[in-house]
Amino acid sequence: MTTVPAYAAPAAKAPLERTTIERRAVGEHDVLIEIKFAGICHSDIHQVREGWGQAIFPMVPGHEIAGIVTEAGPGVTRYAVGDRVGVGCFVDSCRACEYCEQGLEQYCLKGGTATYNGLDKNGEPTYGGYSTHLVVDENYAVRIPDGLSLDEAAPLLCAGITTYSPLRHWNAGPGKKVAVVGMGGLGHMGVKIAHALGAEVTVLSQSLRKKDDGLKLGADHYYATNAPATFQDLAGTFDLILSTVSAPLDFGAYLSLLKTDGALVNVGAPEEPVSLNLFSLIGGRKTLAGSMIGSIAETQEMLDFCATHGFGAEIEVIRADQINEAYERVLNSDVRYRFVIDTSTI
Amino acid sequence: MTTVPAYAAPAAKAPLERTTIERRAVGEHDVLIEIKFAGICHSDIHQVREGWGQAIFPMVPGHEIAGIVTEAGPGVTRYAVGDRVGVGCFVDSCRACEYCEQGLEQYCLKGGTATYNGLDKNGEPTYGGYSTHLVVDENYAVRIPDGLSLDEAAPLLCAGITTYSPLRHWNAGPGKKVAVVGMGGLGHMGVKIAHALGAEVTVLSQSLRKKDDGLKLGADHYYATNAPATFQDLAGTFDLILSTVSAPLDFGAYLSLLKTDGALVNVGAPEEPVSLNLFSLIGGRKTLAGSMIGSIAETQEMLDFCATHGFGAEIEVIRADQINEAYERVLNSDVRYRFVIDTSTI
Repeated sequence: MTTVPAYAAPAAKAPLERTTIERRAVGEHDVLIEIKFAGICHSDIHQVREGWGQAIFPMVPGHEIAGIVTEAGPGVTRYAVGDRVGVGCFVDSCRACEYCEQGLEQYCLKGGTATYNGLDKNGEPTYGGYSTHLVVDENYAVRIPDGLSLDEAAPLLCAGITTYSPLRHWNAGPGKKVAVVGMGGLGHMGVKIAHALGAEVTVLSQSLRKKDDGLKLGADHYYATNAPATFQDLAGTFDLILSTVSAPLDFGAYLSLLKTDGALVNVGAPEEPVSLNLFSLIGGRKTLAGSMIGSIAETQEMLDFCATHGFGAEIEVIRADQINEAYERVLNSDVRYRFVIDTSTI
Repeated sequence: MTTVPAYAAPAAKAPLERTTIERRAVGEHDVLIEIKFAGICHSDIHQVREGWGQAIFPMVPGHEIAGIVTEAGPGVTRYAVGDRVGVGCFVDSCRACEYCEQGLEQYCLKGGTATYNGLDKNGEPTYGGYSTHLVVDENYAVRIPDGLSLDEAAPLLCAGITTYSPLRHWNAGPGKKVAVVGMGGLGHMGVKIAHALGAEVTVLSQSLRKKDDGLKLGADHYYATNAPATFQDLAGTFDLILSTVSAPLDFGAYLSLLKTDGALVNVGAPEEPVSLNLFSLIGGRKTLAGSMIGSIAETQEMLDFCATHGFGAEIEVIRADQINEAYERVLNSDVRYRFVIDTSTI
């Protein structure tokens, strides 16, 4: 066990404050990672505020982790000291269920082990990336390619894979018209990735405030959803709509923007149930679906893809003592487009 | 124009009564069909009672039509006098939009021309199958194979294609576990077709009242949804759930029965919006979808498939003067499994 500094919420809805936590000893298949940067994901805020149900406190959030391997267990084969690695939303899974065996660990039937706000196999609470060090099984770390800086890579571990996985699964690519709803941390990555995959990309954002950025990041079109004409002009347009917002949408309106056989895929998650008229689906054999992060292999594929295309996330690096202020700014959509904590300031 | 007898609802929610209607003269590409049998679909009742929005009265329902060609226009090439033909839910479409060109006329961007409760290209109201004769463009009729009796074939034109199309589209077949929700007119066809496609079929019905029938028609398993253990026992079981009911389901509960990547496809349509927690979709990359009847080509394929496998619908043939009583029995789920009107009694 090693005591390391971290930023934690001592209780639900409480501000985060500096503290220390214990990291386990480096096991046979573990690597010790010196965390360099940790992204702030909207879901950190949901969980710190118990918006998604009862949570475990004290909570050290952070599942967008980039750092350097500083120690490797004797059985480690994939990484060596000095390697640049990332850790995303989970740090273990059952490794035996049909989904783990298929390499879809994110859908592990046992639920896997969340990077934070979870319990590990020994029943100990897990602590995330708002910290200086992390011990993780090498099979749940990914390699950050040399072409990506660690700060811009950190948000890819959640925002990147969460958008990459459904864009790939629902075949975003040349000849496909893809809309990205929301131009925040997830949305801006959705735009970059969908564009790099070759799709024709439209941003659907509440206003045109971030239009210049959207076009710069790869969008071909940019519409404000607060303009009623948008839903008339774009009716029946898209093969795929990727919704990255956690506000409940008017699903009837958004589904009307799909072509027949189109899919509206949600990676954002409103806390409350939404209302849906099934005729919106029946009329054009449409799909309303969800998608949750991605597998370890797919996360590696995504990092390699981003490196090949020469982009990470658009970030604003902050000190640890700015976390609480950053949370407020995230809630006000006042970030372009991801806060990343420089963990040397913890 | 020809005056023919029919059963019509003179106004919303009014009982159906005998009347006469005009059928257009047989045009160059038209066939005149002597209707022999017309199925009663639950959607007839929805529309007669204006449950799906404002409707056109007087209304002659009926879009499960089987009969004999008695006259063919000079340009008709596909059918000859004496041929056994069927007509389903639409009698025309724009023939020019991208979906018509793809052979997906059911999703025609102009909306197509409904067999009844619609307006044809001249703005005249359309009248359905509760009648003795119908004039239709030959391209919107299908051939009923010799192996199928006309009475058992009639319900295939809606109940058959409505279940066949999504079962095929979502790949029901060997190795797939398929649940059919509801054991009514649509559901019993879903069971027969899914079984014939080679899937392992489970019926999810409110009670076990129709269990013997379900197993006889091809179901491998039969569960009562009013038994709470059902949702525990079947959690994560199905690749595909086909919901044929028009009552709003507890979608969270039904989605929990899907495997990762599974789909819950609705062909039944509740009149009111349903409530949905998006986490039910996100957790296993699940799909909630809809499907609406099928194309002309697919309807022909379905009829040929049913003939090859030696089955039509399970029916109860009634006289025209029993239609109103039959509607009440449909609403009480008191039919095994489709009423078919012998149109010679009109």
